[in-house]
Amino acid sequence: MAFAFTGNLLRVDLTHGRVTPEETRLDWGRQFIGGSGLASRYWLEETPAGVDPLGPENRLIFMSGPLTGTPSASASRYSVVAKSPQTGLWGMANSGGSFGPALKWAGFDGVIFEGASSDPVYLRIDDGRAELRDARGLWGKTVPETEETLQAEADRPLTVACIGPGGENRVRFAGIMNNKHRAAGRCGLGAVMGSKRLKAIACSGKSPLQLADPERFRRSVERQIAYMDESVLKIGFDTFGTNMIADMVNVRGGYPTRNWQMGQFEDIEQVNAQAINDQILVEGVRCYACPVACGRGTEIRSGKWRGHKGEGPEYETADTFGAMCGVSDLNAITMANYRCNEYGLDTISAGSTIAFAMECFERGILTRDQTGGQEIRFGDADLIVELVEKIGRREGVGDLLAEGTRVMGERLGQDSQRFAMQVKGLELPAYDPRAAKITGLAYITANRGGDHMTGYIQGPTFIDIPFLIVDESSIRDPFVANPDEAHVLVDMENALTVLDCLGGCKFMGVLLTAGDLTELISAATGWDFGVEEFRQSGDRIYNLMRLCCAREGARREHDVLPARLMEEPLPGGPAAGMVIDRATLEAMKDAYYARRGWDAATGLPTPGKLAALGIADLAGNLPH
Amino acid sequence: MAFAFTGNLLRVDLTHGRVTPEETRLDWGRQFIGGSGLASRYWLEETPAGVDPLGPENRLIFMSGPLTGTPSASASRYSVVAKSPQTGLWGMANSGGSFGPALKWAGFDGVIFEGASSDPVYLRIDDGRAELRDARGLWGKTVPETEETLQAEADRPLTVACIGPGGENRVRFAGIMNNKHRAAGRCGLGAVMGSKRLKAIACSGKSPLQLADPERFRRSVERQIAYMDESVLKIGFDTFGTNMIADMVNVRGGYPTRNWQMGQFEDIEQVNAQAINDQILVEGVRCYACPVACGRGTEIRSGKWRGHKGEGPEYETADTFGAMCGVSDLNAITMANYRCNEYGLDTISAGSTIAFAMECFERGILTRDQTGGQEIRFGDADLIVELVEKIGRREGVGDLLAEGTRVMGERLGQDSQRFAMQVKGLELPAYDPRAAKITGLAYITANRGGDHMTGYIQGPTFIDIPFLIVDESSIRDPFVANPDEAHVLVDMENALTVLDCLGGCKFMGVLLTAGDLTELISAATGWDFGVEEFRQSGDRIYNLMRLCCAREGARREHDVLPARLMEEPLPGGPAAGMVIDRATLEAMKDAYYARRGWDAATGLPTPGKLAALGIADLAGNLPH
Repeated sequence: MAFAFTGNLLRVDLTHGRVTPEETRLDWGRQFIGGSGLASRYWLEETPAGVDPLGPENRLIFMSGPLTGTPSASASRYSVVAKSPQTGLWGMANSGGSFGPALKWAGFDGVIFEGASSDPVYLRIDDGRAELRDARGLWGKTVPETEETLQAEADRPLTVACIGPGGENRVRFAGIMNNKHRAAGRCGLGAVMGSKRLKAIACSGKSPLQLADPERFRRSVERQIAYMDESVLKIGFDTFGTNMIADMVNVRGGYPTRNWQMGQFEDIEQVNAQAINDQILVEGVRCYACPVACGRGTEIRSGKWRGHKGEGPEYETADTFGAMCGVSDLNAITMANYRCNEYGLDTISAGSTIAFAMECFERGILTRDQTGGQEIRFGDADLIVELVEKIGRREGVGDLLAEGTRVMGERLGQDSQRFAMQVKGLELPAYDPRAAKITGLAYITANRGGDHMTGYIQGPTFIDIPFLIVDESSIRDPFVANPDEAHVLVDMENALTVLDCLGGCKFMGVLLTAGDLTELISAATGWDFGVEEFRQSGDRIYNLMRLCCAREGARREHDVLPARLMEEPLPGGPAAGMVIDRATLEAMKDAYYARRGWDAATGLPTPGKLAALGIADLAGNLPH
Repeated sequence: MAFAFTGNLLRVDLTHGRVTPEETRLDWGRQFIGGSGLASRYWLEETPAGVDPLGPENRLIFMSGPLTGTPSASASRYSVVAKSPQTGLWGMANSGGSFGPALKWAGFDGVIFEGASSDPVYLRIDDGRAELRDARGLWGKTVPETEETLQAEADRPLTVACIGPGGENRVRFAGIMNNKHRAAGRCGLGAVMGSKRLKAIACSGKSPLQLADPERFRRSVERQIAYMDESVLKIGFDTFGTNMIADMVNVRGGYPTRNWQMGQFEDIEQVNAQAINDQILVEGVRCYACPVACGRGTEIRSGKWRGHKGEGPEYETADTFGAMCGVSDLNAITMANYRCNEYGLDTISAGSTIAFAMECFERGILTRDQTGGQEIRFGDADLIVELVEKIGRREGVGDLLAEGTRVMGERLGQDSQRFAMQVKGLELPAYDPRAAKITGLAYITANRGGDHMTGYIQGPTFIDIPFLIVDESSIRDPFVANPDEAHVLVDMENALTVLDCLGGCKFMGVLLTAGDLTELISAATGWDFGVEEFRQSGDRIYNLMRLCCAREGARREHDVLPARLMEEPLPGGPAAGMVIDRATLEAMKDAYYARRGWDAATGLPTPGKLAALGIADLAGNLPH
């Protein structure tokens, strides 16, 4: 009996158009839990080393977690795993809303896509049955058009995950969208989906989930929701959304501005949460079963885009299209966000890539010849919307920008890579490590590349949020690089990885202790899951993911920041004059690898470490 | 040159009516900083051991800190030190508003009162001059009447600290009030003031303060205020005041209800911050130079007290007059708060004492004979207001209640002491240690008795607030008693003691790191004050205070909780069935004393510890 899991997966051979249900490998369940952990285990097993991320051999795996679709608060998420066209390594993205729950209620823990279809198709799942259907009529449609067309043709309510033109056109940072506005955005997994000519997954159904101890689970959830309901973070996020933190990061001097040339934005008041509330907010939006309405339902109320509605911008988007591009026009930022959602593009990478192009153009590295005569300068509000559209369609200069900053930097040369603000090909989120050194360590140790959700170290550095889920989340002085604090990052990465596997939102880690979570896990699954196992599971799964990356070539020397952060001091603010220098970063890496029990020379798990984690059988994936 | 200090004190001999300025002992300044630290050093030097707290030999010492009156945010406070009539030990209270700054601008760091006047007097200080004046006409007046009368007779704006009828009548938990509604409430120091027939201190003046490096100080303050301005806590406190946390503590099952018979209040929605906002809030109120308006300017808008205005209730008051007394009528709670402010009574002790009386009455321990026929039962809203008035006037049963729970328990006997909810005579604040064990350790190690502001351990336990001021403020699982975490409490106590000495509010410890604070201290005083010295100063001053208590007889065996907390399990909520048992508490004490470097048998500093802190000269105060 598979408590909390449906016990069934779908295997979809796109090359031959075959859909086959199979049992979920629950023998892997307790070791890798679910979500990104279980998906990664499948991916490592089934995808050969060194495949083309956009080729048919790359497995694309959707996976829910054991808490997904239960009444547990903030556990609405599903993960997607595939080799990433941005990083060339293990890639992962996840998303909230209600698609994860819908997939489980339709009868399946996850879906493994293999091969590629010659013509566009979509997968229709309904109450334990599934089939591939013709999607030629959907190809070219935006995300909302796709959802609406599918819904119009259906005889029951559907929940849809799909790609837009961005994924179809294999924009390197295309995401997978669900509930129209929610994105499994990072790592370019929308491009992988596009490469397989898979337009959408549409779910319906009401299969009930069996929990091991429903009464114990109900009590745990009741307490969990009560805690969240009464938290100061809920007050903040309900009122201001995630962009609440814009002022906090800006005041600490780490708010990336004009492609990271500065750490404070002079027009912050025009793009912060108060500005959103004053100008565009309609209502807060919740994910399935979450008491916190941190999403922003918005409408542009003035100017040329007046009347457009959607969701966002969230914090990252407001920075990457705003301060990063030198743009203080909130309507333009919001419209660029809407267009990203319509085309299915990751907003962090899209905004960062445009900002990079602006700096390249202003420095004469990107020329009018290459832009088709177009001026690409900081502060041009209309331009950011126009460029998003061009990227989504790979039109004109958008074809170059669709490659993201790493490939652009390689193509443009002229030392532009030093300010291509990415790690391992993934564009960085909006927290400058020069103003909180350990953030830099987090960017280079995150398995999916320059990412902030893997370790969420901005919590205890930039935004004063304690993570109860780990024993100790204090960072003494963010300005000071302290290798002794690497253990905080390791613990955070491990714990937050478990959240991804469960189907949980990172905010669960703020308000709940590891004990609260193991109580939920045990009651749902019937496993006798304690805090010790919680910590070890996180470590095991983190090592699994590192192993996936190692197999594709990741080594210590790839754990490095853009030269700008290591060599160009911030010009102003509290961190004025600061960099995170190479030697310091290497010392932090040493401490981090030591804490992980990894080899100092390669930065990879040792066979002994894998054995200690009970995954000695995977040691063959280490370089010989 | 005394940077940040005025360099002058007032010595007031009340017996002989003499006022003499003298130089502040700045040779003590760097060791004991200011505020409660410097005042305690004076108190230990000048008050003989074993005096009657209400006798003329007890020194009553008002002291500001080096940051008081500077533009630094949240540093408006002054401290008062004297032997406490509640605990019979070293007593301390402090308060915000603007009295501390006004005292310094009037030309003095502090005032030492000795002796006692035969007739009521008040101290008038104006720009470096001071004199005692006749206060016979003020005796008997309430706090607002006193302030208004003084102001009406003055030719310039005054800032006043005074006592009401509570202090005059030596109510054991009378406080000292300033700015009408702000209280240096705890330890009964208003009774000490009353015993000296000192009605008030009234300040005016604009003496400028010299800072060591004004430009560096200005920059530090600018950054400090910017950080605070953008914090999520500011959002919460501005919007909801300190009573924001009522829901958080209640949901965790540690919200003292009906004299700690329960840990959750069924009518929480009628007395929480939202209820205050909906029913009585007029506006948020700030202390001098603070960006956070956590004070509540309120007005009763319905019922028999309609039209009454004032400040409060804050969190503690809302619990002690509300849930603790089984009262859900917010108007009555607010009116009881107003009356406490008018009579000059500590709201925590007042509400707790009334709750204790209610339980004693319902159990037949307090009889109609003793109450003059009055019924004193839980849930009687009108009664709490009436009893506050009777306590303030020592009228009828109020004369008994004016003694507080410890003395009442001693007098009533019949095992009532087991639920007299005090430690060392000081009534406990509103966080039940059965639902967060380390809170219990904090209550017994706080030098002034059962207190929550000394260690603020409810921050990381009940309300998810991280204290950046210490290296590590995480408590793994509040329900679990973990002696290994005693160091967290020690570090918090040390750091927060420094805040009191500086003139700082505890909320400075939430948003600023120790590095931020030492920057402020160094720029203000000219001392080269580093984080290491910050930590050691806190330890030194904490030991000084323990030494003051030791001299008056405090020992390990007095570090103990009311029997109810150790023996009666909570009946419901997340901590249902839990106590904090004696053996566990003793183990936590062992760990705490060990961390402090104190003697395990006596719970007191050793001569070696004092020597290590540079105060070997004070070892003579240890028991022989």
